[in-house]
Amino acid sequence: MNYRMIIYVLGWILNFEALFLLPSAAAGLIFREREGLSILVTAAICLVLGLLAVRRKPQRAKLYAREGFISVALSWLVLSFFGALPFYFSGYIPSIIDAVFETASGFTTTGASILADVEALPKCLLFWRSFTHWIGGMGVLVFVIAILPLAGGSNMYLMKAESPGPSVKKLVPKVKRTAVTLYLMYLLITVVEFIFLVAGRMPVFDALCTSFGTAGTGGFGIRNDSIAGYSSYIQVVVTVFMILFGVNFNVYYLIYKKKWKDMLKCTEVIVYLTIIAVSILLISINIRGMYSSGATAVKDAAFQVGSIITTTGFSTANFDLWPAFSKTVLVLLMFVGACAGSTGGGIKVSRVVIIFKTVTKELDYIIHPNNVKKIKIEGKQLEHTVLRSTNVFIMAYIFIFVGSLLLISLDNFDLVTNFTAVAATLNNIGPGLGGVGPVSNFSAFSGFSKIVLTFDMLAGRLELFPVMILLSWKTWKK
Amino acid sequence: MNYRMIIYVLGWILNFEALFLLPSAAAGLIFREREGLSILVTAAICLVLGLLAVRRKPQRAKLYAREGFISVALSWLVLSFFGALPFYFSGYIPSIIDAVFETASGFTTTGASILADVEALPKCLLFWRSFTHWIGGMGVLVFVIAILPLAGGSNMYLMKAESPGPSVKKLVPKVKRTAVTLYLMYLLITVVEFIFLVAGRMPVFDALCTSFGTAGTGGFGIRNDSIAGYSSYIQVVVTVFMILFGVNFNVYYLIYKKKWKDMLKCTEVIVYLTIIAVSILLISINIRGMYSSGATAVKDAAFQVGSIITTTGFSTANFDLWPAFSKTVLVLLMFVGACAGSTGGGIKVSRVVIIFKTVTKELDYIIHPNNVKKIKIEGKQLEHTVLRSTNVFIMAYIFIFVGSLLLISLDNFDLVTNFTAVAATLNNIGPGLGGVGPVSNFSAFSGFSKIVLTFDMLAGRLELFPVMILLSWKTWKK
Repeated sequence: MNYRMIIYVLGWILNFEALFLLPSAAAGLIFREREGLSILVTAAICLVLGLLAVRRKPQRAKLYAREGFISVALSWLVLSFFGALPFYFSGYIPSIIDAVFETASGFTTTGASILADVEALPKCLLFWRSFTHWIGGMGVLVFVIAILPLAGGSNMYLMKAESPGPSVKKLVPKVKRTAVTLYLMYLLITVVEFIFLVAGRMPVFDALCTSFGTAGTGGFGIRNDSIAGYSSYIQVVVTVFMILFGVNFNVYYLIYKKKWKDMLKCTEVIVYLTIIAVSILLISINIRGMYSSGATAVKDAAFQVGSIITTTGFSTANFDLWPAFSKTVLVLLMFVGACAGSTGGGIKVSRVVIIFKTVTKELDYIIHPNNVKKIKIEGKQLEHTVLRSTNVFIMAYIFIFVGSLLLISLDNFDLVTNFTAVAATLNNIGPGLGGVGPVSNFSAFSGFSKIVLTFDMLAGRLELFPVMILLSWKTWKK
Repeated sequence: MNYRMIIYVLGWILNFEALFLLPSAAAGLIFREREGLSILVTAAICLVLGLLAVRRKPQRAKLYAREGFISVALSWLVLSFFGALPFYFSGYIPSIIDAVFETASGFTTTGASILADVEALPKCLLFWRSFTHWIGGMGVLVFVIAILPLAGGSNMYLMKAESPGPSVKKLVPKVKRTAVTLYLMYLLITVVEFIFLVAGRMPVFDALCTSFGTAGTGGFGIRNDSIAGYSSYIQVVVTVFMILFGVNFNVYYLIYKKKWKDMLKCTEVIVYLTIIAVSILLISINIRGMYSSGATAVKDAAFQVGSIITTTGFSTANFDLWPAFSKTVLVLLMFVGACAGSTGGGIKVSRVVIIFKTVTKELDYIIHPNNVKKIKIEGKQLEHTVLRSTNVFIMAYIFIFVGSLLLISLDNFDLVTNFTAVAATLNNIGPGLGGVGPVSNFSAFSGFSKIVLTFDMLAGRLELFPVMILLSWKTWKK
């Protein structure tokens, strides 16, 4: 195990965390909040530890797959732990487990909260909370790669481990250029949303935090009723941008390159938009009776569908009160998740497409054994390794899901609460149903369950394997 | 499509159904119940239609895989439909959808009931209800193959489609001999249980019906409180035999052949027994506070664990009132199911083992990329086709589960009721939780939902593909 290199990577992560904390500290200064001090102190701690760790560049810079995975998993643990300190130091979240839960929820863009009253938080902490979404959305290591000249060969492993989806495409031949391009597109679309929100007379601070939460598909609200209190215009803007941030970023690159034909061939995006449209339609019909006008029903259905499938987790309605059919659709969308290569979580639409094609191919094989076609996605034959890794992902997903469910059920909450709590954290959504519904929060769980759910958030954001490798005894033996 | 041959197979199924109905008609005679007449009439209808269908043996006897699957799916539909007629004719189940649900539940060894008061049924109908479990447990086509000289080459497809598990082993080289051997072992163990029950002073009629329900891992009780009203001795005997009938029958064949070494290598059975032991232990601890004595807690835990993992569905306690942890364990056991090659349903322990090994192999691969071992089960390398079919099975399972859940959620029952209703039917268990808990039944669902759940029972019993092939439009095009 190349410990020196892992520590070196973690050092840079801490340095960048110090950097990330600065805007929040500035917010403390602007709003004259003394909690800004706890942010500054945290930044200083990160910087000191970070500089110590990067003092000497390791001679052997190469990371093997295993070490890449471990670096990524540890990076996110370190980020979550040190990112939690402002909440802890300021006393707004007096339990360190709760503070780490909240911060991991931020970085992993889950948006699950243990806070009953977010409006009680000072603005600088609210800003930090939302900013973690923006950082975590595109990936911290992608950011580091974009800026730093890390060792050759290691980058792809790091990026692979942090990027969502069954296969990582480099947009441009160089990993570093790809990372920069991704971040520029990300920044641009965030700015566009911000402009749209401010144009709708949303206060600048609210618009910034909401843009961060949408862009990272995070879902931390800065008001206790999430987005419900804002105007219909704002709600529609957020709906549209949530759905846009759930799209595979390759599509935006194709648009930028004006490759329209390639864009139209993106099966995943077409399926993603179709699922959204059908879900909105079905739920609108199902909840129509609860609303005075059809338009409001469609607006609320669209917001909730967009929020859940992109795994954002904002809400404008208490969908826990909707009929069983609508709730079931939403729970299923929790698992489907957004497109690969977006900032969203979940199993990812591309994996669902691959699984669906696997099953239909098997049926075809039984029906016409002499006429078997290979599985094709977007005109290209699906590689065997992608197929295998998709299968393995689903199986690992099931095991983690089941294990987590068992562990948190020791708290003896009802089955719907437990099931959707795991679904909402492992898929990086935020709210579930029942005890963790959109008007509730995760504070009632025991410390042990919160640790399990924090693990699930990290496992979900990093697509399971980095965290599993970190926890496997085989990694550490000998 | 070889329609003639399919009709020929269905004809024999009807002839055998007429035969299967005779013991129940005899029961009607013995207990002097006039409902015996509705059984006799049904038998006559089956015989007339059956004889018409088998009048001419088709010239082309060969069945392709697709036709084999369709024959099996249609056979079970025909069995369920005609088997429902005695309930319908006698007026005890006035709705034909309900009657088919109840009968499909019997043949598929599910044991889910729409009857609130089974004790109101005449004994001949109770006997028929339990007898369907015994017939369905080992498989009707296996029975037909055992007796009839069907066309060469078709038999293996038929048996494959009806036998549970990822791969079918022939015990002896000839399919027909295998079928006969299986049925003889099945008969023998059933008789042994019957003797144990009668020795515990259970009335002969009760002992017969309970043995049928245990052997087929069915679960229809003949009392409203299932097995709860019988003595502890009876409950323990039923627990032991439920677990025995969930064991892969190959093991009994190895015992018969005195191949002790081979027997000890059966990974699946070892895992199966380990899961049972651990579950009993955990649940006993979890429910201890609800019982006055530890022994009773263990007895009830063991009964419920044995009943659920083998997908029998008898009950001696209302586990819907148990703590969340125990309920979660039971729900998970619903999915695990019994061993392949047993009479139990569910995903099957062997598939769970294969999935688990797939995930750990992937982790090994990341940790030590140069030292990859093939997946081995019982010392033999796992064939790629078994691995692939296991993956496809899980994926198809998820799609059917999700689709059914959505459809029955239109009835607007709570999510736990819906989820466990699908789990209890697709895994051929019987009771679930909430509205379909051990002290409730399935009568509250709409006719549409009952059809969906009947489909799930058949899909589960036939391991998904025969029913999927039957319903696929591609099967019928051109």
